[in-house]
Amino acid sequence: MNSGPDTDAARGEPGPALDEPSDELVVDVFARHCSSRAALEDVGSKWGILAMLALGEGSYRFNALRRRVEGVSEKMLSRTLQILERDGLLVREVISTIPARVEYSLTPLGERVAAQLRVLADLFEASAADISRARADFDTSRRA
Amino acid sequence: MNSGPDTDAARGEPGPALDEPSDELVVDVFARHCSSRAALEDVGSKWGILAMLALGEGSYRFNALRRRVEGVSEKMLSRTLQILERDGLLVREVISTIPARVEYSLTPLGERVAAQLRVLADLFEASAADISRARADFDTSRRA
Repeated sequence: MNSGPDTDAARGEPGPALDEPSDELVVDVFARHCSSRAALEDVGSKWGILAMLALGEGSYRFNALRRRVEGVSEKMLSRTLQILERDGLLVREVISTIPARVEYSLTPLGERVAAQLRVLADLFEASAADISRARADFDTSRRA
Repeated sequence: MNSGPDTDAARGEPGPALDEPSDELVVDVFARHCSSRAALEDVGSKWGILAMLALGEGSYRFNALRRRVEGVSEKMLSRTLQILERDGLLVREVISTIPARVEYSLTPLGERVAAQLRVLADLFEASAADISRARADFDTSRRA
């Protein structure tokens, strides 16, 4: 089991028990193969956070969402939305008008995640000046 | 007003007023140049979230932190920590023992961010089974 310094067994810390089947659901964001870690990464991705925050405001059509999330390309937004849909955080609904409209909205789980992300975003917005100052100080100290 | 699909002006939504100086601190995570958006991206990055979550448990020495954050390379962890230090979320302390130890711990702002990330991680951990199911369903529907 101890095939390298990076294996669970080598850490001597709690990990999946050795006799558990490998498809056992590991529920620990620190664990490499946990679906919660993977989904956290999806949501945490550059555009994932902003797409979730936007959809936390209400449902959006693709182009409106793209305008809300400043700077995202069509391709990246489309890819991000597909990943979040796959994680069960949002639904893509085709509304049969002429022309057909496609709308994105959060699932109940997505709503809960978005609400938490909003708290985090508020914290960062409230600390924007401190962050800017910390960055300037850091850059100055590196230059010295 | 409508100079392109991606400009603030084209959106007809609140943005920085045109007569504001360009170094005005924009405080909106959706805004391209906001330091809060940049810091949110840093924290949201694949290893950023996990490093913050780990440090939310207490201070860590580099190698112990690397073991806690399963799968991170030395290079990526080092880079991630430097970015988070620059944002004012953590401090790197060199303790002059022989050999010298380097310890990382959160700043007060970092503590608040980590606590919020922990709430998010708990939500994902509690939803790990739902997420796995959503992914399997999505993949099945795509294959059909």
